[in-house]
Amino acid sequence: MRVAGLISGTSVDGIDVAVVDIGDGIHVVATATVPYPPDVRAAILSVSNAATHTSTIARLNFLLGELFAEALQGTGVALNSIELIGSHGQTIFHEGEPVEFLGRKVASTMQIGEAAVIAERTGIETIADFRSSDMAAGGKGAPLVPFLDYRLFRHPEIARIALNIGGIANITVIPAGAKPEDVIAFDTGPGNMVMDAVAPPFDRDGAKARAGQVNAALLERLLADPYYHRDPPKASGREQYGDEFVHHSNIDIATATELTARTIALAIGRYPAAHEVIVSGGGAHNGYLMERLRALVHARVTTSVECGIGVDTKEAILFAVLAYETFQDRAGNLPSATGARKPVILGKISRGTRPPSGA
Amino acid sequence: MRVAGLISGTSVDGIDVAVVDIGDGIHVVATATVPYPPDVRAAILSVSNAATHTSTIARLNFLLGELFAEALQGTGVALNSIELIGSHGQTIFHEGEPVEFLGRKVASTMQIGEAAVIAERTGIETIADFRSSDMAAGGKGAPLVPFLDYRLFRHPEIARIALNIGGIANITVIPAGAKPEDVIAFDTGPGNMVMDAVAPPFDRDGAKARAGQVNAALLERLLADPYYHRDPPKASGREQYGDEFVHHSNIDIATATELTARTIALAIGRYPAAHEVIVSGGGAHNGYLMERLRALVHARVTTSVECGIGVDTKEAILFAVLAYETFQDRAGNLPSATGARKPVILGKISRGTRPPSGA
Repeated sequence: MRVAGLISGTSVDGIDVAVVDIGDGIHVVATATVPYPPDVRAAILSVSNAATHTSTIARLNFLLGELFAEALQGTGVALNSIELIGSHGQTIFHEGEPVEFLGRKVASTMQIGEAAVIAERTGIETIADFRSSDMAAGGKGAPLVPFLDYRLFRHPEIARIALNIGGIANITVIPAGAKPEDVIAFDTGPGNMVMDAVAPPFDRDGAKARAGQVNAALLERLLADPYYHRDPPKASGREQYGDEFVHHSNIDIATATELTARTIALAIGRYPAAHEVIVSGGGAHNGYLMERLRALVHARVTTSVECGIGVDTKEAILFAVLAYETFQDRAGNLPSATGARKPVILGKISRGTRPPSGA
Repeated sequence: MRVAGLISGTSVDGIDVAVVDIGDGIHVVATATVPYPPDVRAAILSVSNAATHTSTIARLNFLLGELFAEALQGTGVALNSIELIGSHGQTIFHEGEPVEFLGRKVASTMQIGEAAVIAERTGIETIADFRSSDMAAGGKGAPLVPFLDYRLFRHPEIARIALNIGGIANITVIPAGAKPEDVIAFDTGPGNMVMDAVAPPFDRDGAKARAGQVNAALLERLLADPYYHRDPPKASGREQYGDEFVHHSNIDIATATELTARTIALAIGRYPAAHEVIVSGGGAHNGYLMERLRALVHARVTTSVECGIGVDTKEAILFAVLAYETFQDRAGNLPSATGARKPVILGKISRGTRPPSGA
């Protein structure tokens, strides 16, 4: 079955598209990243977790539906060869832990990019809003990527760790011959977020970090943060490593890169049986960071490219795979990763003009 | 198939529930209206078409999901006897006509009341978000009720008009032996909105209007509004008859009631072949208004109660019926009413824990 996955991440750069053939395995047919027009990006940032007018969110929801449909059309893959679309949309609010709200405890999330528009423009059945079903079942709505890691990287005889270095870094630990409930996933700490803030827009290939000098005293102090030494499950908020962290610590790029590598290595070090660490995310492009990881980690460090998965398109592939699971009436969350009470069928289905053949 | 319908209208009073058995006909099993807690109602009004914080909309969406599920549970109908839920949710923004937005023409709508929460709490497959699919196909996302009017009131030999007197009044004209494309639906003008504003919270049974004196000069001037004389399709915005209208015209309750009756009668008068007018909505409780309608209209005036449909629960029944249509992979919009380019399957499907048997 040919399925498309669509997502725009929290960096709000643009729409990642992956078209994959799913059967016994997952074969990537096409990928693309379509940048947002600057005014659209500005509008998304202005409504994300901020005060705004309801009309702006409603209009942006429908506008993003158009842009997501066009991003898929732009891949050049014939629409009539695609049977299903999984669209994550654009997160504008996410609060995985319940807060007190009008006398109740409420966790909530909000993705925009109207699936009815995507289904109508493409004619293809479209599944969206994957996080809310997990949260309705008591989960944090994240991370969802361990489900794909498990599918892609599970091995009968060797233990593997999938490491994604986005703004925050997180790992999925997949023991040898693991069952879904054996999978462990958590945030290790900073990914690119601190490095990018110190050397904007980013330290190409880690050149500045390589040329710099690590502030050993500062590094030691930061590594003493109990978060790094606590047992999972655990999640680092994105607010944890933002402007305030950078300002307050007065950290330099060499120390930021070393902190990132060392906190990842600390997390991986908890799993001495792991034979391989498979890296994806923007951080996989940072040659110096990868070098430091190889020096610090006991396991073989490689990237998802070796498994046919581009380091930047894993999440778009994830939503194609999750749509396929929902289409097959199968659960797509891993309760051991999200904290949900049980596995649930994720997403909401908008019918297209042609029903999927289910081939 | 036993299906539940859930809606909270723009008056934001509370959640209307209808449980219906759908087969050859539509048999109402139970209905209920569950008022919102005052702080929830205040929160909904504060985010409706207003400046707010994104977090408030996101949290309210999940909270309303809980309240909608509880409203259904409160009917006492065994949940395991219900196979499907259609939930309209609570509209907090609706703009049926496209506006210029970031360089594109965008029409949009936003209903909240998270369907994933309803599906999880009840275990029942839940279909929601009915208006967006019609709008994606170029429709105004409203009115949807003519679909139900057509189903309920179509007659092989007599022409009927379904009149709903909510805040705004609207009619559905169903010619004798009509096909879906023969149905005409439009807003006639004010419903309860002006009367309620002049005699808050409402003029019980029209007693104040009956005792008052119609200001003939003002009535004449208001009836000259070209809207009432224009051919359909046409829609009156709710903003048209709000505080400004009341203030500016300095209208009294007797004249407001007469204006409502006369504008409805003007619309109905366009269809001299109509034999019956079937009234629903809160205005059907206003004895004096009904009396004036009977005097002004050539056709027999009755209420939907005669057809087994409570005047206050027609919309909840509508969303049960629309969910059933979607479940059967059938379109649920009437393009002649909404202006859509074509009939489309409405809504987004959230899976429950038990699949519907489709009985």
